[in-house]
Amino acid sequence: MKVLKSACLLFSLFTCLNVISQTDEASLKKIYAQSLTNGKSYDWLNHLSNQIGSRLSGSLGAEKAVAYTKEELGKLGLDKVWLQPVMVPRWVRGAREFAFIETVPGKTNSVNICALGGSVATPALGLKAHVVEVKNFKELESLGREQIAGKIVFYNRPMQADLIETFNAYGGCVDQRYQGAVEASKYGAVGVIVRSMNLRLDDLPHTGSMTYEGVSVENRIPSAAISTNDANLLSTMLQLDNNIKFYFKQSCKQLKDVQSYNVIGEITGSEFPDEYMIVGGHLDSWDLGDGSHDDGAGVVQSMDVLRLLKESGIKPKRSIRVVLFMNKENGLRGGKKYAEEAKQKGENHVFALESDAGGFTPRGFSFDCNNASFNQVLSWQPLFKPYLIHYFEKGRSGADVGPLKTETNVLAGLRPDSQRYFDHHHASNDTFDAINKRELELGAATMTALVYLFDKYGIN
Amino acid sequence: MKVLKSACLLFSLFTCLNVISQTDEASLKKIYAQSLTNGKSYDWLNHLSNQIGSRLSGSLGAEKAVAYTKEELGKLGLDKVWLQPVMVPRWVRGAREFAFIETVPGKTNSVNICALGGSVATPALGLKAHVVEVKNFKELESLGREQIAGKIVFYNRPMQADLIETFNAYGGCVDQRYQGAVEASKYGAVGVIVRSMNLRLDDLPHTGSMTYEGVSVENRIPSAAISTNDANLLSTMLQLDNNIKFYFKQSCKQLKDVQSYNVIGEITGSEFPDEYMIVGGHLDSWDLGDGSHDDGAGVVQSMDVLRLLKESGIKPKRSIRVVLFMNKENGLRGGKKYAEEAKQKGENHVFALESDAGGFTPRGFSFDCNNASFNQVLSWQPLFKPYLIHYFEKGRSGADVGPLKTETNVLAGLRPDSQRYFDHHHASNDTFDAINKRELELGAATMTALVYLFDKYGIN
Repeated sequence: MKVLKSACLLFSLFTCLNVISQTDEASLKKIYAQSLTNGKSYDWLNHLSNQIGSRLSGSLGAEKAVAYTKEELGKLGLDKVWLQPVMVPRWVRGAREFAFIETVPGKTNSVNICALGGSVATPALGLKAHVVEVKNFKELESLGREQIAGKIVFYNRPMQADLIETFNAYGGCVDQRYQGAVEASKYGAVGVIVRSMNLRLDDLPHTGSMTYEGVSVENRIPSAAISTNDANLLSTMLQLDNNIKFYFKQSCKQLKDVQSYNVIGEITGSEFPDEYMIVGGHLDSWDLGDGSHDDGAGVVQSMDVLRLLKESGIKPKRSIRVVLFMNKENGLRGGKKYAEEAKQKGENHVFALESDAGGFTPRGFSFDCNNASFNQVLSWQPLFKPYLIHYFEKGRSGADVGPLKTETNVLAGLRPDSQRYFDHHHASNDTFDAINKRELELGAATMTALVYLFDKYGIN
Repeated sequence: MKVLKSACLLFSLFTCLNVISQTDEASLKKIYAQSLTNGKSYDWLNHLSNQIGSRLSGSLGAEKAVAYTKEELGKLGLDKVWLQPVMVPRWVRGAREFAFIETVPGKTNSVNICALGGSVATPALGLKAHVVEVKNFKELESLGREQIAGKIVFYNRPMQADLIETFNAYGGCVDQRYQGAVEASKYGAVGVIVRSMNLRLDDLPHTGSMTYEGVSVENRIPSAAISTNDANLLSTMLQLDNNIKFYFKQSCKQLKDVQSYNVIGEITGSEFPDEYMIVGGHLDSWDLGDGSHDDGAGVVQSMDVLRLLKESGIKPKRSIRVVLFMNKENGLRGGKKYAEEAKQKGENHVFALESDAGGFTPRGFSFDCNNASFNQVLSWQPLFKPYLIHYFEKGRSGADVGPLKTETNVLAGLRPDSQRYFDHHHASNDTFDAINKRELELGAATMTALVYLFDKYGIN
């Protein structure tokens, strides 16, 4: 009898699950079809990239992007659209950088560099010095002040090619860029040149943020990235003759903070309006390309999540917000500000999803959440299978949503295919032509599907 | 007691499986690391694409590609390298095609077309006629001879954007290109213009094979592909005025068959030399681009499978062959020839894997095999997980290996990400710059891993 009862229970559970699953299957199908046949993400990105262009915090581009995305969100018939003020740092590159390797006085070989974001300028006539190549901070330490003082430190540890996820290869290298000046200046170095965070061999320097934390103003040394081809050239030339000199000139500077904004739109929830679920990307970009992959893609995908929900006839129970964060690249002021205000207002953010890993074919998500929520996600895997979304792992979510972390909420990051990402990251070839429309739209649909499921079933 | 015995058995089985799995994990790790840090596929493809270029059957490019790949295989220290003679068709495009839409006499609008592979030429001064747009053969039939005779049939059914796998969208459209002339000529049409098999809107016409099967020589009508942008233009102009005319001129022709070759290399098996496992791609390409994705990628990946096995210290038990097939695009003569000779010689081909879906990030494989073999593959899924290889489905293998099909063997096709494939397929932008080195290398490693496993464990 007991067995029979259990079987019945199992049967009804199974039937029930099946019903849910069929509705969900249909909803996901609708969402993906909408995005692939009627998506707006590609058109929005076209405007953002080709009509506005790069959007470094405090720049005219960033200002235009705020106005444009607010206007576009305004057309979607959301319940609310507003700007959240946030003060942001303003760093400007100035004139294009210039650099060469000098083998003997007067004999020079030009190389491709760009100032790292936040770096100070060189003296007006540039900086020329001998070069010490190192692979890591330990090597730097072992060389000591004696061999470093007065020289340029050249960090040349390449990204590890045999790591499958390129973000792991980035993570294993980026200390050179971010912390390189702080470490080198401890030993009296006069400048820093860092190998670009790029797995390809090419001629493009890749910028990115760096810090001077703990270094007094007068001891801050100019820092630049060199292209991977030129890093190899410099390294070879140093092996042939370590007496060569490196010259570079850059005129970047840090100006006063300026007013900027996060751009926010909301569909207010029908049943639990006080439970907030957000999707977002960052509206600012570096200044060398037009920021199509980093993170124009995440911006337009996030915008389209709300539109796709509406177009698919889904009325969310919870309040769904799109948040376009300002200043992720060199300050994270927008992300911090959003979390700070949410806390002040006691807003309960149960879910936050960020797309900030490029507009490539989505493979899945990584989740920063507890086991119950993660198991809930795993139970949805079959729903995603028809869309070739297979990757569901615990891991990082996104820098902008990170400050919203609580013990019970779910933070997630869209995980697109990462193989091409660092070919473009922070470089002049992060441009619209590197975006594939379908890949971008599949990402928007995949985000929408996850939002739909968490809204429908709540957070376990 | 029985329970205990079973538990013991289960335990030893588990332990045994675990041991196997650790060795296999290490082997796969070695294979992927080799490919990503020391792969040859990208260099080979650079030569094939940039030094040789397009490789249509019977062309000088195809001849050079045979010589080059044989020479390169010769350097790998394989047990045998040889050419397998095969006669192939030779079709030449001639002068660049030219086409326009004529609204009123003398008022023309140029459009981008290319002759379909195998098409006859237009008359020397070109062909001008009214146009009938149809979406499929049924519509053609319903219009009948009365409305079609003397006109150009314009097939304009687009690839379906909401299909996730783009090959399915291709499969749903390609009858227009392949069979379009046969069907249109039944009703007295004088020419065929077909919308390019391309999911993007752009200006590039995409060629591809077509047939005149069953159509007498004097009734063969010239057929060309038009770019997707121009297909939309033509369709719109027809809606505004169905009295407009279309002009096109092409001077392609079919010449006599010529001698060519499949290129084959072999590592002879240490235990079961009479069991053959092959990996391959097709050496010929269409003539508009340089055939980097279709199928230069498959060629160099297949070559690298044998090299990666050697470099990873793996000595196969079975004989592993790389087969570079000639003439897949317009005849499949190479694939047929290889299977025919294998049958004549009584060679037991237990496994065949083709890479012919582009050099993009590999997602997995599709298998044409029985359930026992397929379950064997499924048991290996965890081994592939660290490499983000998730897709293991029953389905098509590859055109060239198809003729090797038996009831017990395993045919497989590498399945790369398909989103960008038809942007380049058979068009002038199928070029080396659209290849990402890591994606190509991941494909080669993934193929090698599958070959390693089937060689080690045999075919279930």
